[in-house]
Amino acid sequence: MEASASEETLRGNLAEKRAAVDAQAEAVRKLKAEGAENSDINAAVDTLKALKVEASAVARRLQAILSSNGGGGATDREAFRQAVVNTLERRLFYVASFKIYRGVAGLYDYGPPGCAVKANVLAFWRQHFVLEENMLEVDCPCVTPEIVLKASGHVEKFTDLMVKDEKTGTCYRADHLLKDYCKDKLEKDLSLSTEKFTEIKHVLAVLDDLSAEELGTKLKEYGITAPDTKNPLSDPYPFNLMFQTSIGPSGLSPGYMRPETAQGIFVNFKDLYYYNGNRLPFAAAQIGQAFRNEISPRQGLLRVREFTLAEIEHFVDPKDKSHAKFVDVADLEFLMFPRELQLAGELAKPMVLGETVWKGIVNNETLGYFIGRVYLFLTHLGIDKERLRFRQHLLNEMAHYAVDCWDAEIECSYGWIECVGIADRSAYDLRAHTEKSGVPLVAHEKYSEPIEVEKLLITPSKKELGLAFKGNQKMITEALEAMTEAEALEMKAALESKGEIEFQVCNLGKSVSIKKNMVSISIEKKKEHQRVFTPSVIEPSFGIGRIIYCLFEHCFYTRPSKSEDEQLNVFRFPPLVAPIKCTVFPLIKNEKFDETAKIISKSLTAAGISHIIDITGTSIGKRYARTDEIGVPFAITVDSTTSVTIRDRDSKDQIRVSIDEVALVVKEVADGQSTWADIMWRFPTHSA
Amino acid sequence: MEASASEETLRGNLAEKRAAVDAQAEAVRKLKAEGAENSDINAAVDTLKALKVEASAVARRLQAILSSNGGGGATDREAFRQAVVNTLERRLFYVASFKIYRGVAGLYDYGPPGCAVKANVLAFWRQHFVLEENMLEVDCPCVTPEIVLKASGHVEKFTDLMVKDEKTGTCYRADHLLKDYCKDKLEKDLSLSTEKFTEIKHVLAVLDDLSAEELGTKLKEYGITAPDTKNPLSDPYPFNLMFQTSIGPSGLSPGYMRPETAQGIFVNFKDLYYYNGNRLPFAAAQIGQAFRNEISPRQGLLRVREFTLAEIEHFVDPKDKSHAKFVDVADLEFLMFPRELQLAGELAKPMVLGETVWKGIVNNETLGYFIGRVYLFLTHLGIDKERLRFRQHLLNEMAHYAVDCWDAEIECSYGWIECVGIADRSAYDLRAHTEKSGVPLVAHEKYSEPIEVEKLLITPSKKELGLAFKGNQKMITEALEAMTEAEALEMKAALESKGEIEFQVCNLGKSVSIKKNMVSISIEKKKEHQRVFTPSVIEPSFGIGRIIYCLFEHCFYTRPSKSEDEQLNVFRFPPLVAPIKCTVFPLIKNEKFDETAKIISKSLTAAGISHIIDITGTSIGKRYARTDEIGVPFAITVDSTTSVTIRDRDSKDQIRVSIDEVALVVKEVADGQSTWADIMWRFPTHSA
Repeated sequence: MEASASEETLRGNLAEKRAAVDAQAEAVRKLKAEGAENSDINAAVDTLKALKVEASAVARRLQAILSSNGGGGATDREAFRQAVVNTLERRLFYVASFKIYRGVAGLYDYGPPGCAVKANVLAFWRQHFVLEENMLEVDCPCVTPEIVLKASGHVEKFTDLMVKDEKTGTCYRADHLLKDYCKDKLEKDLSLSTEKFTEIKHVLAVLDDLSAEELGTKLKEYGITAPDTKNPLSDPYPFNLMFQTSIGPSGLSPGYMRPETAQGIFVNFKDLYYYNGNRLPFAAAQIGQAFRNEISPRQGLLRVREFTLAEIEHFVDPKDKSHAKFVDVADLEFLMFPRELQLAGELAKPMVLGETVWKGIVNNETLGYFIGRVYLFLTHLGIDKERLRFRQHLLNEMAHYAVDCWDAEIECSYGWIECVGIADRSAYDLRAHTEKSGVPLVAHEKYSEPIEVEKLLITPSKKELGLAFKGNQKMITEALEAMTEAEALEMKAALESKGEIEFQVCNLGKSVSIKKNMVSISIEKKKEHQRVFTPSVIEPSFGIGRIIYCLFEHCFYTRPSKSEDEQLNVFRFPPLVAPIKCTVFPLIKNEKFDETAKIISKSLTAAGISHIIDITGTSIGKRYARTDEIGVPFAITVDSTTSVTIRDRDSKDQIRVSIDEVALVVKEVADGQSTWADIMWRFPTHSA
Repeated sequence: MEASASEETLRGNLAEKRAAVDAQAEAVRKLKAEGAENSDINAAVDTLKALKVEASAVARRLQAILSSNGGGGATDREAFRQAVVNTLERRLFYVASFKIYRGVAGLYDYGPPGCAVKANVLAFWRQHFVLEENMLEVDCPCVTPEIVLKASGHVEKFTDLMVKDEKTGTCYRADHLLKDYCKDKLEKDLSLSTEKFTEIKHVLAVLDDLSAEELGTKLKEYGITAPDTKNPLSDPYPFNLMFQTSIGPSGLSPGYMRPETAQGIFVNFKDLYYYNGNRLPFAAAQIGQAFRNEISPRQGLLRVREFTLAEIEHFVDPKDKSHAKFVDVADLEFLMFPRELQLAGELAKPMVLGETVWKGIVNNETLGYFIGRVYLFLTHLGIDKERLRFRQHLLNEMAHYAVDCWDAEIECSYGWIECVGIADRSAYDLRAHTEKSGVPLVAHEKYSEPIEVEKLLITPSKKELGLAFKGNQKMITEALEAMTEAEALEMKAALESKGEIEFQVCNLGKSVSIKKNMVSISIEKKKEHQRVFTPSVIEPSFGIGRIIYCLFEHCFYTRPSKSEDEQLNVFRFPPLVAPIKCTVFPLIKNEKFDETAKIISKSLTAAGISHIIDITGTSIGKRYARTDEIGVPFAITVDSTTSVTIRDRDSKDQIRVSIDEVALVVKEVADGQSTWADIMWRFPTHSA
């Protein structure tokens, strides 16, 4: 969006230049046809040539801008992505699932290093959120009966719009086809008129809001066909993204694989609230698999059919969304992208979190607190803070019940990717399940002393209404019960003074005459001992696979080998997430060194440090390169039986440490109690 | 099974006594009918009474044995179970899933303490198996395409036999109905004849092997009807236990929720073998959800529709199943229940693991090594070693390809429950996927120098066979190619000497005359550089939920409150698995103590110790009881601002420790670096 101002100017400019070229070419033709003087013709041709040069200069400038937006820059980004993905697949961080059977789109396996990274990310998530915040962690099944997902709205609304190739039956996401068409137009069609350009920009902006009909109209208008066959497409229709199944042997109990973990928490609210001593606020958390039967998965690990979610549901009193620990994160400063900046076509800006809450940009302290905690979580993992922003949802993006939503977006080769959603969902979910199940999912606040409240009581007399209005009494009864306090009091006064009143019944489309004996209206005083209310929920929801993929990209770099004849791949994982913390290499093949390496290996195991020992005789440089490529932060090289060296992956610095100390020193840096810089001071450096 | 000898004797005895009673009663009747002397009649009646007394004495003894087998003992066990389950549900260790919607049979949620126990068990599993053995951990999806589960045999054979209530359609497991009937008969029907008794015992023994037809015949024979309605039942038929779904939007790609995690490892064998440097042996491991759509789940957490499995696939050269670390476990001694003991009707016996392997009771060292490691794993968690046995599968229990299988069975209120299966599955799984996918899942062993091998080459001449036999040449070609070496050599000799030979083609049902020009048979010498083979796999498979449930039962006990007026519940979880390691209680409500408690809480968080802080003014005894009931091993009571007490849950011993040290001391015992006994020596004891 940011570059579009100059892009638009250039497009206009190009259109003008091309029009001038066309006009001059016509002029030349005319001169020739009229048999004009050669000198006149030559002059006109020279002008035409000059105009063509100008037009192509503008075209080149436009092309350059388009390239940096997504075209040529995209080539660089794709090359980078290919390098990362090649390394990830070759080293078995992840692979397509069921590869020997040609795989299934959107399903991936984590191999050993990927699995270890994932386990580390989840362990840190538990430490950072569950343990530090005393959250109530739960673990619910993936198989979910239909009624739960009807209440949550997923059975009705968890859909994407789909079109089918009318001949082959191949399915596509309708919005993806339209998006691809529009992007392609903008990137490659330099002759787009200003009107067309504006229109296509608009389509891209409102893409997510288009109805099935509107999408269908656009697809037809642009003549979009099936990408693989060019066959005509069906009209778009909704496809539910849940994997459906059947629970039990009867075939009569439909179920789904859960599309999110949150519902398991909501349906347990009552027990969890009790477990927490009937006190608010409290948070429940869940880590688990979720499933979405994507129509046509793409973008590798970013859009998959099964993924790990980590979700928090923080329940608060809607009247008090302050957070006791907000002060701990208020001073953090990072890239925020509020609604206003987005609408003004500006970029995300560094902002101090506390100020965004005080200024009302972020709706409340609890939401702000979680934004801060998510920032700390992601940057601790190794996400580059320059490529992390918190983007506020536009008003049309949010569900009608949501109060405010912010996405943690991480920039990678696919663009800015939503990795964590942090939403204030108000009381929506608990209310929906209360209504469907009949079990009140509410909280109570005891008043310090009882409060006297006045309650309006409207009691229609079914008998009298029945006698007077026969078939219509039900609608009239409902209309009477639905009166506002003001309307009821007005009626009460009228009935007392005049004995009857004209009453408009909308559903009947006419007014009826209500008499005194047909309804009793009174105000009763009642003592209330407690306030009963549905808590609001603030939901941070983490797509673990997306975070891990972005982490892979942010940690990947290449550097020349010692001989400078090749580029070596490195993942600069922080020790916290590194799949393996340490390697042990005997410098040369030698029984004594092998023995020493085994002793060190035992002490590392005892200290709980994951490591690999490599006693192949391969050159030490090759062994370093092999482990740099899976992001092992420290390498112990055994070159004596009394002391060894520890090498840091990124700086390649080495220090010398005694055999007895080495496991504890590695543990100290691997656990994050000390940094490599701290350690460097304490031990003699070693030059290879 | 063990008590059945005396039970059988008594049943025989009882039958005799009853026959005697009947005969004597008949005699009395006869005397009366004949109008015999009163004195004779009285004498006969006295004999009858005496016989009746004897018969009922035998009946009582039989009843007593039946009760201790399963009847009255069952009442005690059920009462114990109810106490455990009540505590577990009340304290939210687990609850029925989707309770507000009346739940779904066989689906459970782990609440906060249960979830923490599960996370601790899994973390220890990773430490004990994956880290210590350098296993390759993977993480594959639950959604699995049909082809994979066709190859593994699950689509065809993963079934239970089901019967339907013919009127209501309610489904039951056929074997369960028969089992319930038989058990009930044995427990309650004292008048069972010896033949009937033996027959029913036999039915119970072979229950798992009965075909659908045999089961149906037995159900009919015993007149078994639907338990809820007494309606007639359908014939038994197989019901596949996998949850079925559809992958992608087309509806044309059937898939299932995986019934085990193992297949994800097998299909990745090639990549994992490469990852391991093309070396054997190595093990891959996976923790994840598995799904079984049980017909009628019962037994709470023991038979559920979704559960967490932790599986290891250890790949070895079938020619060498030794294990380098077997010596580390060879001296362990624990309850083993080999096939021979089971068949002899004896009990499990303590055996030294090493001896069972040397004697060939356990098939090989690798299998033995895992049995030992599983024993260490379970007892470390807190499973009572007196109620843990390793039971060998009987020959008819094992799959045809299996070499040897041992189940770790844990005794709980439901009886002996299979919690870990440890099986040598030979090369079955890799071969099945090789065949179905066409991708060879094999290992290679390089010979130190090439080996010369002779290979038989049979080359039928299609042209000549076609000319001679027209339509039949294909079958003849196949028959020629399928000849054994001996047959081929015989044919070669005959063709060379006589020029032709009569050859029996089974598929044609006749013999044909093969001439010299129709087939060439030769022996070629070839140099082979490596051996290519399919590895064997040894598979320890852990049902995490079952282990956890048995752990709950083994750790549960009650003890009187201080005032002795009630029984308090305690879980004696080892610190390793305790859901929360420590509590912090200010002794009385007091600002300074609260402040001190918060300081301690911060240092515990920094040390990574999960804890709760309770500053409600409730009596200290009540707070202890509340946390004993969820198995918190240590309680810190703040009764001064400089030092505090630490209380041990089970001994109730208390020691006094300074504020600065307390977090580290708790960490030391909670992490298992020291025991409570060690700690007791170092600090002054505190008497409350």
